[in-house]
Amino acid sequence: MTVLILGGCGFIGSHLVDALVHRGVRVRVFDRQAERYRTPVRGVDYRFGNFSDRMALAEAMAGVEVVVHLVSTTFPGTANLDPSTDVQDNLVGTISLLDSMVSLGIRRIVFLSSGGTVYGVPDHVPIPETHALRPINSYGIVKVAIENYLEMYRKTRGISPLVLRPSNPYGPRQGHIGVQGVVSTFLRRALDNEPIEVWGDGSVVRDFIHVRDLADLCALAVLSTVEGVFNAGSGEGVSVNEIIQNVKEVSGRDIQTIYKPGRPIDVPRSVLDNSLARRVFDWSLQIPLKQGLAESWQWLKDTSGRV
Amino acid sequence: MTVLILGGCGFIGSHLVDALVHRGVRVRVFDRQAERYRTPVRGVDYRFGNFSDRMALAEAMAGVEVVVHLVSTTFPGTANLDPSTDVQDNLVGTISLLDSMVSLGIRRIVFLSSGGTVYGVPDHVPIPETHALRPINSYGIVKVAIENYLEMYRKTRGISPLVLRPSNPYGPRQGHIGVQGVVSTFLRRALDNEPIEVWGDGSVVRDFIHVRDLADLCALAVLSTVEGVFNAGSGEGVSVNEIIQNVKEVSGRDIQTIYKPGRPIDVPRSVLDNSLARRVFDWSLQIPLKQGLAESWQWLKDTSGRV
Repeated sequence: MTVLILGGCGFIGSHLVDALVHRGVRVRVFDRQAERYRTPVRGVDYRFGNFSDRMALAEAMAGVEVVVHLVSTTFPGTANLDPSTDVQDNLVGTISLLDSMVSLGIRRIVFLSSGGTVYGVPDHVPIPETHALRPINSYGIVKVAIENYLEMYRKTRGISPLVLRPSNPYGPRQGHIGVQGVVSTFLRRALDNEPIEVWGDGSVVRDFIHVRDLADLCALAVLSTVEGVFNAGSGEGVSVNEIIQNVKEVSGRDIQTIYKPGRPIDVPRSVLDNSLARRVFDWSLQIPLKQGLAESWQWLKDTSGRV
Repeated sequence: MTVLILGGCGFIGSHLVDALVHRGVRVRVFDRQAERYRTPVRGVDYRFGNFSDRMALAEAMAGVEVVVHLVSTTFPGTANLDPSTDVQDNLVGTISLLDSMVSLGIRRIVFLSSGGTVYGVPDHVPIPETHALRPINSYGIVKVAIENYLEMYRKTRGISPLVLRPSNPYGPRQGHIGVQGVVSTFLRRALDNEPIEVWGDGSVVRDFIHVRDLADLCALAVLSTVEGVFNAGSGEGVSVNEIIQNVKEVSGRDIQTIYKPGRPIDVPRSVLDNSLARRVFDWSLQIPLKQGLAESWQWLKDTSGRV
C-alpha cells in the first residue's frame, strides 16, 4: 500500500511519516518544501509542489491507495485576517483534491480537521464528536465546510473519508514563531530568556496532545477502513498558567510572564472527549504532558543555533 | 432609510421590493438583469451588474443603510454539479460583500439562508433553529459557511446580521424550468398538459410558504434591529402527493404522474418550526396553501404565452 501525505514535511506530517515508515508502509510526501528540521527520511518518495497546482497534485496521486490531507495554508490565529484567501486556498483546494480523487479512482482520505475550532464555545467539556459545530473563526468555518463536503462526497461520489479533529498538538519540530502553538512559543521564549506574553489571565484551558500520540492515531486511521469523525485529544484540560509553570520546571528557568488583555475570539475552555477514538482504534496515549514538555525542551536546545 | 436588495429582480426579491415600497421604504436593487415577468417598479432605483464585480457592488452600496442579500448563483438541485464554483461565487462573493460593508461603514445585513438544506436530515420535525446543522448538499454547506462568517463578522467587525432560513417558497413569478421548486414545475406541467415527474413515491414532505408571506417577514426583519437566525416557513408539512392533488384541483386538470426512483440526497421530511419568527416579529401567515396555489395557477395562465 502506498500512502500519500499532503503536507508531509510539516510538523504533524513529519511525525506521521515516521509512524507509517515504522509500520512498513510505503510513503509518498507532497509538500511545498523539504522538512525544516531534519534531512529527508530514507525510503520516502518526496514530491514538491503547490497544493493549488492541480496537475502536480494529480501526478503525485498516481498509484496511491490512501491520501492523508494535512495541508493548511493558514493557522487558527491568522486565517481571520483574510477569510477569502482562506476559503480559496483550503476549501476550494480540498474540493479540487476530492474531484481529482474521484477521477483517479482513489477512494480513501484521512483529513485533519480541528478539534480546537470546529465546536466554537462548547456547551460543556469534554466535548464529544456529536456536539454542535459553531465555529467562531475562519479556520474553523473552513474546516467544518470541508468536513461537510467529505460527507457529501461519501454519499454521492464513493469517497471513503475519515476525519480526525486534533486538539492542540505540541512536541519536537513544532515551529516557534508565535502562530503555531503556545508550547513551542513559550519554550522558545524560555530558551532566549525573554518574557512570555499571555492574552488574558492565563486561565484559558486547552487540551494538549503530544504530536507522536496524534501521529500514532493518524497511522491507525490510515491503516483502517473506518469512516467517520474522531476527536484526537488527550481528554485532559490544562490551563495556560499550568503550561507556564511546567515550562519553568522543565527548563529550570525563571521566566517573566506578561499578561495582556484577552481577545474576544478566544474560547475559554476546550477539552476533547477522546473515548470514541480510544475504543474504535484501541488507541492509548503514551506520553504524559510533563515528559513531552521535557523532550520538547531538549529538542529545542539541541536544535537552537542550527536553524 | 435606503435598503439595497441584492438579487431584487429575482423571485423572492421582486416580492420584497413590493413589501418595502408598500411600507414607504426607499429601495435600490442590484441584480444581473431586469425582472422577467413585469416592468420596473416605479420609484425603485435599479442598478445592473454582476455579484462578483466588487466595484459595481460597492458603488451600489453608496448611501445605503441596510443590505438584503438574496443572491445565489446556484440552486439546491444544481450546486452539487460544481461545488468549487458554488463556493467561489457564493461564499467568497459574500465574504467580499462583508469586507466592502466594513469598509463603507454599513453595519446591517439581512441574509436569506436555506431552511430546506442547512439542517440536512433532521432528527425531528418541526425543526427549531437550534437543531444541529448537518447539510448534505453543496447549497446547504455554503449557506452554513456564510451563516458562520456572518456571526464571525458580527463578533469581530461590527456587522449586524439577521439570517432567515426559508423553507420552500412558492407563488407568482417563480421560475418554472424545473430547478426552482416543485409547485411552479407541477403547475407548468398541468398548463402544458404534460405528465408530472416525481422522484420517489411522492411521500417526501416539505414546508411550503407563499412568497408574499416570506417577503412580509423579510420586510419586518429589514425594518428591525434584531440580530440572529430565524426559520421562515409555514410550520406545516405537506407531501409532494398532496401538492399534486391540490394542483389537480386548482387547475381542474387530470394530470398523469410518473414516479421515478428516489435520489439518495433527498431529505425525507423537512418542516420548520416558525414560532420564534412569529413571536419576535409579531408575524403571521396570511395565505393558506390552497389559496396560494389557486393564485399561482391564475398567474401562470395569465403569463403564459407572454414570456
